Parts: sequence; structure tokens; C-alpha cells
Amino acid sequence: MLDDIIMKIRPLDEQAMEKCQLRLDNLTKPLNSLYSFEYLARKMAGITGNSRPRNLKKSIVLMAGDHGVVAEGISAYPQEVTAQMVMNFCQGGAAINVFAQHVDAELVLVDIGVAADLPDTLQIYHKKIAYGTNNIAKGPAMTRAQALKAIETGIEIARTEVDKGARIIGLGEMGIANTTASTAIIACYSGENVEKLAGFGTGISEDVWKTKVQVIETAIGINSPDTTDPLDVLSKIGGFEIAGLVGVILGAAAGGAVVVLDGVITAAAALLAVKFAPQVHDYLVGSHYSVEPAHKVALDLLEIPAYLHLDMRLGEGTGAALGMSLLKASLHVLHDMKTFGEAEVAVAQDGPGALKQSKDIKD
Amino acid sequence: MLDDIIMKIRPLDEQAMEKCQLRLDNLTKPLNSLYSFEYLARKMAGITGNSRPRNLKKSIVLMAGDHGVVAEGISAYPQEVTAQMVMNFCQGGAAINVFAQHVDAELVLVDIGVAADLPDTLQIYHKKIAYGTNNIAKGPAMTRAQALKAIETGIEIARTEVDKGARIIGLGEMGIANTTASTAIIACYSGENVEKLAGFGTGISEDVWKTKVQVIETAIGINSPDTTDPLDVLSKIGGFEIAGLVGVILGAAAGGAVVVLDGVITAAAALLAVKFAPQVHDYLVGSHYSVEPAHKVALDLLEIPAYLHLDMRLGEGTGAALGMSLLKASLHVLHDMKTFGEAEVAVAQDGPGALKQSKDIKD
Repeated sequence: MLDDIIMKIRPLDEQAMEKCQLRLDNLTKPLNSLYSFEYLARKMAGITGNSRPRNLKKSIVLMAGDHGVVAEGISAYPQEVTAQMVMNFCQGGAAINVFAQHVDAELVLVDIGVAADLPDTLQIYHKKIAYGTNNIAKGPAMTRAQALKAIETGIEIARTEVDKGARIIGLGEMGIANTTASTAIIACYSGENVEKLAGFGTGISEDVWKTKVQVIETAIGINSPDTTDPLDVLSKIGGFEIAGLVGVILGAAAGGAVVVLDGVITAAAALLAVKFAPQVHDYLVGSHYSVEPAHKVALDLLEIPAYLHLDMRLGEGTGAALGMSLLKASLHVLHDMKTFGEAEVAVAQDGPGALKQSKDIKD
Repeated sequence: MLDDIIMKIRPLDEQAMEKCQLRLDNLTKPLNSLYSFEYLARKMAGITGNSRPRNLKKSIVLMAGDHGVVAEGISAYPQEVTAQMVMNFCQGGAAINVFAQHVDAELVLVDIGVAADLPDTLQIYHKKIAYGTNNIAKGPAMTRAQALKAIETGIEIARTEVDKGARIIGLGEMGIANTTASTAIIACYSGENVEKLAGFGTGISEDVWKTKVQVIETAIGINSPDTTDPLDVLSKIGGFEIAGLVGVILGAAAGGAVVVLDGVITAAAALLAVKFAPQVHDYLVGSHYSVEPAHKVALDLLEIPAYLHLDMRLGEGTGAALGMSLLKASLHVLHDMKTFGEAEVAVAQDGPGALKQSKDIKD
């Protein structure tokens, strides 16, 4: 199934992107003056194969899973909070509910490894692979089979969302201690010192931070993940929600949907996803830079720009939702701005802005 | 009138801000994890005097004016474009129309100094002070009386918007060559070399950029603006739309409205506004960093953070509109997220996140 999906991820549609650029160049603004919005518009054109996509349906897939490494005392919150927050998401009271509503995105919740039994009645995907991962400071997080199953779960959910019409899929996550696992993954791929990567998560003290750094170093040392084999990295130092998000990325790209990243956990998932399928890179869009140092390192490794500097450290998909808002604005630009021809405004006389006005297009 | 308005700008309401913070601290998220959104929510509470403001009405005031310095050949576009773009704004085809609609803000257009007669029938404020400024490379841009009149025009328009219910006022501008005037102003206040401040505006060539740098240096040298007297700076090297925006800032603050900055031109106006009335600083909110180097220098001088890195170079208020979207999201957080008490989620056990849960508030 994984190989099948990877085969289905196509290069972006160059023709749609060129046609999109032609229109952007003709809008009543200096050439490329809406820089990032133009980049995002072109990307959406390339992914959807439509030079003027509009009203792309948005979903945020939020994967929740627990982490055995919480036993090392590296989080500000007890493990129970993962399950409690899933309940909160269902009741609509969390930040992601508010942000999803703000950008008109559907919120799709998945229990892929929460360390508690969640009520069957909850409106979530019940896809628990285990009651949290094993403690990565003692051994591997999960088996290869479990990692694969988690990826396939993510693929299936992404496909369902695409089938329901979603064309922009945001990544979200909940899992106490998951910045620890994510930072370990990013340390493996960046070769950066853990001290330079580890952040304060949801708000730990300096002492707990020191423990966290040691725990990450121990986890890498004890497990020796093989970076040439992403499934090895994922199963040894990953998490169920991280593996699930790898699947969502692959499944969304295979279905022709844009994937919007959130914070450091989703960046770790993206690093792994491009190891499974390098061509998935072009489907990824950054949103914000969180305060976790590993986040920017991972995005730089991926060569994916992010746009929002809000010093957030929450996850859940909150940054992805804000990124979706930028995509939405970008589609508005593509659709609702007039061209020079339509508006009768003079074109530039000098400099890069002075490239001849392209043929006016009204498609 | 100017003195009257300055007297009316009050310090922010500390009590409303504290009460707002108390609610933010009780929401189901790690303490301060929505950092910038919490800062913005507190600011809106302090400005409006309401600890839980909501649905604040938004207006973008776009001032258009021409600049005599265009004669020095420092812009990619001919002067006619200012008037043409005002027509385009009226027809709804420009970027700011799209962005204003995107954030549900009213767009208020003002001719404060366009070098052309605009049709009386246009739905704009017809407040032309002159047909563009004089060439600042040859002498002062305008008289002190004209600068004062432009400020008062801005004050009046801001008051009208506040009377109509606006509580968030975004700044926008249109004026061929106005990055030249703005950069000159920012050079005076920052003491930075013009070479480090001047950008490529709407898209000039390297050669034109060199001319632009010389022209700015000449304008400062010939006019010797007195930085202790903002009206002197404004009249010698400013612009009608810049003076108008100074007035909008002062008038909006006096009326208890949040002021959202846009790019480098609005940053120059903000620098001048705080010279007229230092207490206006607390009413200012940043939005994006444009590619103009002087923009970040000015915001740093003002100690005002911006959030969006989109490499835009368009003006019109497009960045301000996007900033408004962040303010809107921030109000959603304040209103629609649940507190720990409401949602039955455990509080943090360690670190800065472990501060005792404050008394749950349900106002």
C-alpha cells in the first residue's frame, strides 16, 4: 500500500503553474510584489492542475498519540492531558477548534495511540495502535509493523478527506512529550547538537530542559536509528501520531492535495515523508515558525519557507490553520484582482517591473 | 485641533488588560503558548477598555498622494499610476480590495494630494491639498500649513470612522515615489546610511536605485529637517499621504481604536506620530515586514513587532489587512476557547506552565 501511494505522487503540473504565473504577472500590481502569495498560488495551481483554483476545501487532520518517554519527566504536563485534550477538541473548546473555524477548515480527529480508552461515542477516528509508544530512552518506540500500520492509517484518512473533496490538508497533533521524539528525529537528520535543537516544549523549566536534552541524546544513542531507512527512524524514536502524519502527507499528495505544515512535530513528519518519497516535497507548504529551535532547522533542511513569526508553542494544527488563511488570501488574489488590461492602469517603465505586459488572459 | 486630539490619547486601560490576561491564562493551552495572539488580545482589551472585546469593526484608510521627487526618475512607474490606481481601487480590482474583503474591512479612500483631477463622482474623500508635493531634491515638499492641514484631514477621517463604529483602523497608501520620501524620514530618525535603508520600491533597476540613494541624500542635505520638530520633517521631506496617515494614527488613538501598520510608508508616518504624541505608541500594531530595508529599521526603532514575512512590496494597506486577520483570530481565541475549568483538563505540573491555575473566570 505504501509503495502504491508513493507511485501515485506526481510532479506538479508545470503548464497550470505557468498559466497561473501569466495571470499573476498581469494583475494590477508591480511584478511579483505579492511574492509569497504568488508562490503559493502557483503551487496550488501546480498541485491541483488548475491554473485558477478557487474555494479549495480545507481539512485539518489532528493525530493524537502518547509517548512512553514521558516517564523520564521531560514534559510540563502529565500524560492524561493528551486524552483530556482530545475530549476538549470534541467539545470545541481548544485553540485548534477556534483556529479551524477561523479559516473554515474541517477538523478531523484521530486517536492513533492515546494511552487511555476514549469513549466510543466520540466523533473521532478510533485507530489506536497501542496505548502510547514505549519509552525511547530505554529502547525502540514501536515495532516496524506498528510504524507501517500507523503510516497506512494516515494514508487512509487522507484519502477519505480527499474523497470528501478536501484539497488543502493541514497537519495537527496532540501528544504529551512529542517535542522530545520530534527533536530526536530532527537531530538525526540535521546532525545538529541536541542542545541547539531542544526547546522548552509547552513550558518546562531549565532543569527539566537539561533532562530533556540528555533523554534525547540517550534515545538516539541507545536506538542508533538508521537515517537511510525512514521506517527505522520512525519505529525507533518516533511516535504514532508522527507516523500517522507521514501517512497523511503521502496520502494527501497522492490525492492531489496541498499539505500545510504546523510546528516542530509536523516538520519531523515531513522530513521522514520526503525520505519515503522525495517528490512529496513540492506538495508541502510551511505556515509559521514556532519557538522550538528544531522547527526552523527542519524547515531549512526541507527548504520550505514559513511566513508567520508568532512565537507560538502550542501545536494542534494552530499554525497550519493560519497558513491556510494565507492560501485562501492567495486564491482571492488570483481570482478577484483585475489585470492591467481590465483596469486600464499603465505598466512599469523601468526595472524588473518593466518586463513587457504579457498577453492579457481572461480564462 | 492637533493639540486637542493629542490630549485625548489616553494610556491603555490596565485593568481591562489584566482581566483579559487572567482569562488567557485560564484557557486550555500552556500558559502564554499563543504568545503574539495573547499580546494582541491584551492590547485590544487595553485600547477598547473591554476585557473581552469582540467583533471589532475594521476600516482601512488608504491615503493617496503624489510626489514631486518622481521627476528625479526614481520610480519604476510614471506618476499617472497614482490616479489610475485610485480609479482601480474604486472599481474593486486592486490587491487591497481583495485583502480588505478577505478580512471584512471597509476600505476608505482619500485623495489628499493626487497630481490629477479625479472625477467628483468617485466614492472617495476629495481632500486634495495640492497636486502632489514639490520635489524634495530641490526644496521642501510642502509648507508647514499644508502639512498641518494634511494631518488634520487624517484626524477628521479617523474620527468619522470611529464615529461609524470602527475600532480597528488599518493604514494604507498609494503614491508613486513615496518609498523615497519615507526612506528619507526613516534615515533622519535612525541615523542609518541611506544605502542600507533604500530598497527597490515597486521594482527599480540597480542604476535607478543608485539614483534613488543620491536623491534621498540630497533631499536630506538640502532641507536639513529638524528631527526635534516632526512638522518640520514632514513638511520638508514628507508627503501629503504620509502627513494624512499621521493624522489618522492620532485620530484613531484618540478615539480608542487600534491602529494597524502596513509597510515602510506607514512606518515613517508612525515614527512621526510618536514624535507628536509618544503615548500613541501603545495603539500601534505591526503586521508584516516588507522587503524595504527601512521598514524593519523603523519598526525596530518603534519597538513594534511584526508577524508576517511574506516579502511583499506593494503597500496599499495589504499588510495591514493581513494584520487585521491576526487580530480577528486573537479575538476568537479570547471568546471561543474554553478555560481549564470549563473543559476539565489538568493544569501543568512543572515549569513556567505550572503557575497555579488562576481563579476561573466566566465573565
